[in-house]
Amino acid sequence: MASGVCVAVVGATGAAGQTTLRILEERKFPVRELRCFASERSVGKTVTFKGDAVRVQKVEPGAFRGVEIAVCSAGSAQAKEFAPMIVRAGAIVVDKSNAFRMDPKVPLIVPEINPHAARGHQGIVASPNCTTIVAVMPLKPLHDAGRLRRVVATSFQAASGAGVNGLEDLRQQSLAWARGEAMVPQHFQHQLAFNLIPHIDTFGSNGYTGEEMKLVNETRKILETPDLPVAPTTVRVPVFTCHSVAVNAETEEKISVARARELFAAFPGLTLWDEPADNRYPMPIVVEGQDDCYVGRIREDLSHPRALNFWVVGDQLRKGAATNAVQIAELLLRG
Amino acid sequence: MASGVCVAVVGATGAAGQTTLRILEERKFPVRELRCFASERSVGKTVTFKGDAVRVQKVEPGAFRGVEIAVCSAGSAQAKEFAPMIVRAGAIVVDKSNAFRMDPKVPLIVPEINPHAARGHQGIVASPNCTTIVAVMPLKPLHDAGRLRRVVATSFQAASGAGVNGLEDLRQQSLAWARGEAMVPQHFQHQLAFNLIPHIDTFGSNGYTGEEMKLVNETRKILETPDLPVAPTTVRVPVFTCHSVAVNAETEEKISVARARELFAAFPGLTLWDEPADNRYPMPIVVEGQDDCYVGRIREDLSHPRALNFWVVGDQLRKGAATNAVQIAELLLRG
Repeated sequence: MASGVCVAVVGATGAAGQTTLRILEERKFPVRELRCFASERSVGKTVTFKGDAVRVQKVEPGAFRGVEIAVCSAGSAQAKEFAPMIVRAGAIVVDKSNAFRMDPKVPLIVPEINPHAARGHQGIVASPNCTTIVAVMPLKPLHDAGRLRRVVATSFQAASGAGVNGLEDLRQQSLAWARGEAMVPQHFQHQLAFNLIPHIDTFGSNGYTGEEMKLVNETRKILETPDLPVAPTTVRVPVFTCHSVAVNAETEEKISVARARELFAAFPGLTLWDEPADNRYPMPIVVEGQDDCYVGRIREDLSHPRALNFWVVGDQLRKGAATNAVQIAELLLRG
Repeated sequence: MASGVCVAVVGATGAAGQTTLRILEERKFPVRELRCFASERSVGKTVTFKGDAVRVQKVEPGAFRGVEIAVCSAGSAQAKEFAPMIVRAGAIVVDKSNAFRMDPKVPLIVPEINPHAARGHQGIVASPNCTTIVAVMPLKPLHDAGRLRRVVATSFQAASGAGVNGLEDLRQQSLAWARGEAMVPQHFQHQLAFNLIPHIDTFGSNGYTGEEMKLVNETRKILETPDLPVAPTTVRVPVFTCHSVAVNAETEEKISVARARELFAAFPGLTLWDEPADNRYPMPIVVEGQDDCYVGRIREDLSHPRALNFWVVGDQLRKGAATNAVQIAELLLRG
C-alpha cells in the first residue's frame, strides 16, 4: 500500500521524540515510511514504532531524500543546523525547539487556536514552548469572548520539561533521599526534590528568564495580540510530568464564571475539571497521559471587576510538545 | 532568680508548638517557669526545653493560674474554647489559630509591620496565617514607599503547613514511591508526592478556599488597607518546609527594581537574596531554619507601568508561626 506519508522523527530517543512516536501511533497518523534520527551517540540504537524496531540514523542531507514531513524534537542549536537542510531536501519541518518560533517568516501554531497562520509557511512551522501551549489554550476562548487586556501567569513546571535528564535527576535525587543519602543535582542548578527552583532557561538583562519571555512573546504571537501585557513567573517543581499554570486574566468585557465554564467546556483540546465540592480540580496526576489541557478553580477575581482566576494543567510531553506537533503535521497534510 | 515570665505553650507537641519551644530558647525569652499543654492523648508525654524534660499537662482552668503569657498553637476549635478561659485565668494569649484573627477586638500582629496595633488588646493577640505572613513582609515596605493598589499572589505551600501529619504524609508517600509501592494519602485529599494540590482549607461559595480568603482578609487587616484588592491562589506542593509566594504588586507610585531592592534590604525580617547571575534566589532549601523571609527575582512588571514581580520564601514554622508568635510575646513584655 503506497498511500500515506514518509515521516522523519528527529530527536527520536529523547523524551519528546519518544512521545511523538506514541502519538503518531495513537492518532493513526498515515505513516507510509518512518525514519528516525538522533544525535551521534544514539545512532545505531533502535526505537519502537507500531511494534517494529526502527534503527536510529545520523542526520545528514541524503538521509532525508523522500521525506515529506519531519517532526524535529532536537535542541535549538541543532534545529538551526538541521531544519534548513531538511527543508532543502524537500520536507516540511515541524520544529519543537525555540530556534524559529519568533521568526516572522515562521508560523507558530496551536492547531485549535491559529490553524490559519500555518498557510503560507516557507518550509518550517514551529510548535510553541510547552508552558505557553498550556497557558494559551484557555486564554484563547476568553480572548474571543471578551478580548484579553492583561495576563498574570505563574507556572509550576515538571522535571521532564527539561527532558529525560531532568526527569532522571528528580528520580535519582528522590531515591537518594529515601536511602538517607545526599541529593546531588546532576542536571538542575540545585536540588529539585522537595524544593522549588524559580529559574528555567537563562536570565536576561531585564531579570526575566528565557522561559518567562517565551511565555510573553509566544502568547502574543499565537493570539495575534502583539501588545498584550503578560506578567510571567516560571518555577520548576518536583513533579515528573505536567506543567500547571495559575492564571489571572483580565478582559475588556466582563466574563462571568458561568460563561467561562461554558467557553472552556466547548473549546476543543480543553477539559473542564472544576467540581471543588468533590475535590475535583486539575492536578498533574490527573492529567498525565492526557492530550487535553484540564482547567478548573475558575473564580471571579476579587481584585478586579473584569478578571478571572483559574488553574490549568497540561501534559507538557503531549499537548505541550508531541501532540501539538503531530496535530500541526495533520493540519499540514490536510493542506 | 525570680525575674522572668511564667509562660504556657499550648499545643506543645505539634509542629508549631515544638518550633515555639526552640524559638523561646534561641531568642533567650525570659522564661521563669514553663508549662506545656496538649490534647488529651499527649498528656503525660514530655517535651524538651533547655535540656530539661517538661511534662505535658491537660488544659484546664486551674492549670493556668500564675501564667503571664500563653502561646497557643492549637486548632481553631480548641482555641475558641481555651483562649477565653486562659484570659480569665489572668494570662495574655498569643493565638496562632484562625479563631480570632478577623475579630475586630483582637489585634492581628506582625511585629515588624504593625506593632502599634497590639496596644489596647483585650487579652488575646492573634498571629496571622503562615502564608499571609510570608507574603505581607515584602508588601509592607512597598506599601509605605508607594501605596499598594493591587496584589496578585500565588502560593507554593509546604506539607508541614498542615502540621506534623502533613509532613509525615509527604514523607510516607515519597518512601512508598521509592519502594515501588502505591502512594496512599493519609492526611491530604490526594497524593502530594510528585503532585500539586490547588486546594488548602475548605472551599467557600465564591470558589475560593479558606486559605485564599485568609490571604486577602488578613493582608488587609495587617496593612490597615481594608479595601486593598488581592487576587489569591494557594497551592500545596511536595516540599517539607517553607512556603513560597510569587507576587505581582501594583503601587500608586512607581517603585523601580533598584528602589525595591533597597527597601527590601533595609526592612527588618527580610533578607534580599537576588543575584540571578550566581543562581542565587530564594528557595525552600535555602530558607528552611531561617527566621527571615527571603526575597528575590525582583523584576519590573512587563504588563503594568507601576508594578513589580517578586518571589518570597519563608519558613512557615518559624516566621510563619512560632517566630512571629514569640516576637509578639516579646512585644507584649516590652509593654
